[in-house]
Amino acid sequence: MQYDSTMEFPGTSKLSQRYGKEIVNYYGGSPLNRLSFLRSKPAFLRAALRQGRFLLLNNLNALLASSSHLALLTYDEASGLVGSVYELTDEEVVENYDSSKKVLPTVLFLGVDEEYVLEDGKDAEVVFEGGYKGRPYFAVDVSELVERGELPPTLLGRGWEWLKQGLQLGIVMREAAILAQARSLLDWNARNQFCAGCGSRTVSVQAGSKRVCPPKDRADGARERPQCATRSGIHNVAFPRTDASVIMAIISYKGDKLLLGRQSRWPPSFYSTLAGFLEPGESLEDAVRRETWEESGVRVAHVRIHSSQPWPYPANIMIGCIGEALENGEHIWLGHDPELQDARWFPMEEVKEALGRAKLTLGDTVPKANENGGEEEVRLRVPTATAIAHQLMLAAVNDWEAGLGVDPKT
Amino acid sequence: MQYDSTMEFPGTSKLSQRYGKEIVNYYGGSPLNRLSFLRSKPAFLRAALRQGRFLLLNNLNALLASSSHLALLTYDEASGLVGSVYELTDEEVVENYDSSKKVLPTVLFLGVDEEYVLEDGKDAEVVFEGGYKGRPYFAVDVSELVERGELPPTLLGRGWEWLKQGLQLGIVMREAAILAQARSLLDWNARNQFCAGCGSRTVSVQAGSKRVCPPKDRADGARERPQCATRSGIHNVAFPRTDASVIMAIISYKGDKLLLGRQSRWPPSFYSTLAGFLEPGESLEDAVRRETWEESGVRVAHVRIHSSQPWPYPANIMIGCIGEALENGEHIWLGHDPELQDARWFPMEEVKEALGRAKLTLGDTVPKANENGGEEEVRLRVPTATAIAHQLMLAAVNDWEAGLGVDPKT
Repeated sequence: MQYDSTMEFPGTSKLSQRYGKEIVNYYGGSPLNRLSFLRSKPAFLRAALRQGRFLLLNNLNALLASSSHLALLTYDEASGLVGSVYELTDEEVVENYDSSKKVLPTVLFLGVDEEYVLEDGKDAEVVFEGGYKGRPYFAVDVSELVERGELPPTLLGRGWEWLKQGLQLGIVMREAAILAQARSLLDWNARNQFCAGCGSRTVSVQAGSKRVCPPKDRADGARERPQCATRSGIHNVAFPRTDASVIMAIISYKGDKLLLGRQSRWPPSFYSTLAGFLEPGESLEDAVRRETWEESGVRVAHVRIHSSQPWPYPANIMIGCIGEALENGEHIWLGHDPELQDARWFPMEEVKEALGRAKLTLGDTVPKANENGGEEEVRLRVPTATAIAHQLMLAAVNDWEAGLGVDPKT
Repeated sequence: MQYDSTMEFPGTSKLSQRYGKEIVNYYGGSPLNRLSFLRSKPAFLRAALRQGRFLLLNNLNALLASSSHLALLTYDEASGLVGSVYELTDEEVVENYDSSKKVLPTVLFLGVDEEYVLEDGKDAEVVFEGGYKGRPYFAVDVSELVERGELPPTLLGRGWEWLKQGLQLGIVMREAAILAQARSLLDWNARNQFCAGCGSRTVSVQAGSKRVCPPKDRADGARERPQCATRSGIHNVAFPRTDASVIMAIISYKGDKLLLGRQSRWPPSFYSTLAGFLEPGESLEDAVRRETWEESGVRVAHVRIHSSQPWPYPANIMIGCIGEALENGEHIWLGHDPELQDARWFPMEEVKEALGRAKLTLGDTVPKANENGGEEEVRLRVPTATAIAHQLMLAAVNDWEAGLGVDPKT
């Protein structure tokens, strides 16, 4: 497991003294400045392209240079793939929309790495007149080229390989955050080729981070298309979606046990924190109470939000919380929602021990244990430090060790 | 302003002793148990209908019984509006899909109020064999009936009125949370009549909380429709979307000032916390740092998540954070993104004073001040307690008063 961070934001501060250090979860902590307000400026984008580094994705799987690093192409290597992207303004793209023309591969502008320094020790070149500088990063969806066998084989001739299907947790932390952004946004583009308000085709603008339902189609004589809900109001479906989910370490009323659950497809003895998606018109705190009750029957009172983790499978934000069971709410009942195979209260001591030897992530393939048991002791297994679940369990254990297990009424 | 909560979760606990009380923001703290796992059970839904209370929405504006309470119809009053909804299983709805047939009004099952007690002091009747009991709530989209003049006028004969367009912050807290759920979910249904993956019509299932892209259409001889991205993978667009946004009280490095900004359309002297939407593959903490820099030029180091607020205009979750500026990062520069008209550091004393006389919300219409100034002193104005912005400012002021303004290095 490559993992190059203490998962704590560096330095101390008044906030960290009061509330504890800020936790930086895997896929978070991006080194890029997204410069989102420059996505609509073709002159900036064209200048950035020429100094850019390009990440290729094939069906959302990134091209890797090694098991822990992304493969990044120079502009010379990638120019044949990106073609004449960013030639037009967004207004021109929408005005010239023609459904009879071929859709180009999606090219995303991800941002600039401001800390990048050239090999001669100088800062990276200024990429735009505004004084914004750094190494620009782009992502290119090459799925169709790969499918048609049109990707130049020289690109893959350096031992570079497509990441295999599945979770991508071996990439070093800074690059994992870049991958998370690219993957979530390309997935959204692929799934939103049509307008949910009227069923017509959409078109990519703002360097891949927005899709528009064009009011006219040149293939159709540029007649006005019918009114569409997507073109009115502020909740424009043409903005990328990220689905919010809560994930929660629930401590017992006395603070000495932790509630963990397991799904039937997980490896033997593997348990993790409960989790679920936020519902419309629901607070995160209420979602923690609802999901915990639905999945385990346990009733939760107070909830505290801990930290967050982008989860690009395909586009979630996981919001980690610590919750506390009601005094009489600890009874486990799996009968509401059949999502979990088991849920159980584990003593903090046992969780602490399991964290110390945690080597599995939810994405790992693990050989089935000997069904007959054998002589090996079956002990609790929990996710590794790259999972926010691990960080939440750790926070709960640390709280317990700091004396949070004392009943507040005594 | 109707406001019936201290905005703090009741009682004390180990968590609240350690981190402070849990804040319940307006639109949060729903009294309903959503019983989401029963949305696919027609027998439950039909039983619940008969004991239900029905909230009507016309173009997302709720029917009100007074300025602070929702109008809630009985089943006898609403049965003509909901017709024979929930007769079929979801599988049958998808199997029988026929695009030539009229689309019925969307009827949402919102959940049950478990604390509801009958007037004779007994618990509400059991609504289903599983033992789930309470008063069921539903929401009905009557926009089309109103437009065609087909809504029975007797329904509006008790002084009931449609809430006027705009923010709905006068409803008592428990009912506001019910409204938030109904409004967000109806808006999503209205905007997702077509599949974003293939452009075909979608159909409502799970009591209004999911939409399916049917694989066959009986109007078309029930031929298989082409493969569609929406029907594969876990990121099914047919689930409702909620857009995550961050809103942040940024304190100065010394902790003695607060960063606030204003938009040009706001009333004179009105300032609030900065805010913005989460981007794909981004942590909430990174989003706070990015948005603060984009809008104000201020560079933020540590971030702590504080609490959340559902915001049904139309379907956002606002995640409130406290952030701290870098020692040399406090310079304000509005030139990146022209979203704010002004941003400024306010001394905590001035913010505290403004909080004490806060009467405005962002949704209120406020008369323009005398442009000539006059004799009235122009003082800082900030949002009222129903806005999470107010709660974040309050938290920052409380931290300052508790001595957080002391430099940690001294």
